[in-house]
Amino acid sequence: MDKVLLDYGSGGRASHRFVQDLFFKHLGNDILARMDDAAVLHLNGPVAMSTDSFVVDPIFFPGGDIGSLAVHGTVNDVAMMGARPLYLTCGFILEEGLPLADLERVVASMGQAARDAGVRIVAGDTKVVQRGAADKIFINTTGVGEIVVDPAPGGNRARIGDAVLVSGSMGDHGLAILSTREGLSFAAPVVSDSAALWGLVEKVLAAAGDVHVLRDPTRGGLGTTLNEIAGQSAVGIELVQADIPIDPAVAGGCAVLGLDPLYLANEGKCICIVPGDKALATLEVLRADPLGRDAAVIGRVVAEHPGKVAMVTPLGGRRLLGMLEGEQLPRIC
Amino acid sequence: MDKVLLDYGSGGRASHRFVQDLFFKHLGNDILARMDDAAVLHLNGPVAMSTDSFVVDPIFFPGGDIGSLAVHGTVNDVAMMGARPLYLTCGFILEEGLPLADLERVVASMGQAARDAGVRIVAGDTKVVQRGAADKIFINTTGVGEIVVDPAPGGNRARIGDAVLVSGSMGDHGLAILSTREGLSFAAPVVSDSAALWGLVEKVLAAAGDVHVLRDPTRGGLGTTLNEIAGQSAVGIELVQADIPIDPAVAGGCAVLGLDPLYLANEGKCICIVPGDKALATLEVLRADPLGRDAAVIGRVVAEHPGKVAMVTPLGGRRLLGMLEGEQLPRIC
Repeated sequence: MDKVLLDYGSGGRASHRFVQDLFFKHLGNDILARMDDAAVLHLNGPVAMSTDSFVVDPIFFPGGDIGSLAVHGTVNDVAMMGARPLYLTCGFILEEGLPLADLERVVASMGQAARDAGVRIVAGDTKVVQRGAADKIFINTTGVGEIVVDPAPGGNRARIGDAVLVSGSMGDHGLAILSTREGLSFAAPVVSDSAALWGLVEKVLAAAGDVHVLRDPTRGGLGTTLNEIAGQSAVGIELVQADIPIDPAVAGGCAVLGLDPLYLANEGKCICIVPGDKALATLEVLRADPLGRDAAVIGRVVAEHPGKVAMVTPLGGRRLLGMLEGEQLPRIC
Repeated sequence: MDKVLLDYGSGGRASHRFVQDLFFKHLGNDILARMDDAAVLHLNGPVAMSTDSFVVDPIFFPGGDIGSLAVHGTVNDVAMMGARPLYLTCGFILEEGLPLADLERVVASMGQAARDAGVRIVAGDTKVVQRGAADKIFINTTGVGEIVVDPAPGGNRARIGDAVLVSGSMGDHGLAILSTREGLSFAAPVVSDSAALWGLVEKVLAAAGDVHVLRDPTRGGLGTTLNEIAGQSAVGIELVQADIPIDPAVAGGCAVLGLDPLYLANEGKCICIVPGDKALATLEVLRADPLGRDAAVIGRVVAEHPGKVAMVTPLGGRRLLGMLEGEQLPRIC
């Protein structure tokens, strides 16, 4: 029995055995083990809740897989609200015929990523659809965490004079997925940055005092995310292109393929917008952490062109950086 | 533009327009409108959290659609913990080419079901996969609610002497899906029972005092769910087959198709296990509610055969009712 069968999703005896064998082995904890219709949680104070479905293709890629990505993506969205991620639920949609070895590799990776991120998987659901009705495996994760700062960061809290930082290089995840999918190889390997950011965020919250905005530039990349923030806060954002960290391998790959790394997804990076006088302290704690060693101050919040993002180019020109138009890369996460 | 396009899932400008036009129109509220990476919620006391992915085929069926079902399924799982459902997240996986009119009908139905159930949809996510990589639309919903009773009902709390009730007829949802999918029609119409149960549950909690177990017999049906409870509580359960309510149209359809309604999914029914001396009071409040008008006491919790479910047949024999074996009906929810 080496493939996922349709009756593993039936809710009957086969699903029970399947779930107990595989999911409990890798994801089990005392809350999940109760096997009730819902998990019982104890949460203090205001709570952040976020959901994401993952359909990344391929399901295994340099730097991660759909399982670890499904943990990182959602715990990071929770962390961006200044909240310590605590609990995750996971919903699997499996294609009949998926090799069980692939599924187990994904589930084991989820379990490891959850332990590393300090979160517990407290409820789950598995559906199996017939061959051809889904592509291998889709995973939804929904996370909750306790907000530990007041006021919490918010996309509408960027203020004129704030500094804009990123915690590292842009575009790694997007290019890693594309190059794997298309069988491309570059001079230097391109690896996804998929990682859980709460540890880094916690240090930033302590160093910067009041962090105005935290956001992870996933789908749509840095360009789209900054446009969202400029719109929500009704401010302008001005970037210095030369200060935006881009890994040379990613820059090279993007040049060859005609892609802009500022619109490629990141899965282990955050944008931090902090009061201008806290920029250097924030940069220092970011760079002291392995996940933030390439952090940089990339721009500032301005009164001009509210709702828009402008960029000073290396040649001294200025251009507007709009939202992503069309689809650069489907199924990137 | 009358079909879902791949770039609606890009995270860029097209997704933003699409999300704002369609999802906010039907699901919008002040929390969702903040458009941050996570919703900020205020919850008191212990919280129940549950997740479910919906892959039902067809997406429209007599008595509901995948949108209302995705709300009912998850709010019911939360309610079964004695918790008032408050907030839902939803994650959509859409197939490129899905008619926008179908999507809007589903989303509008979700919005209506959420309003009727008194819950708000506070966070969402949309992914679009290429044609053939998913079948029309899959929806994950994850819900949280505040547990209002102490101790909360739990699958491990059935006690010898307890009465076992169901809130209505068994098998309606499963047979409605199957007959729609296969284009079958019976003498009388078979309609899904998909409904939100919190209102009914709240009355049961008040009438029965300490409700030991609440469970909705969805996938796997009554037979499987009672086996789960017998196992979790290490007790036997004894049913009287003649007392289990089955709609005549469902009984007739099942007889024709060789299906057992006790293993068919329900989406608007609950099992209530209460102290024996509270059985009649519980039955009375169930029957006074339109969703519980066919409620019945169907059996009791016994010391014999712990972990197993036995049933007295109309002819006076006894047989064990095991868990569902194999898959009666894929993609029933």
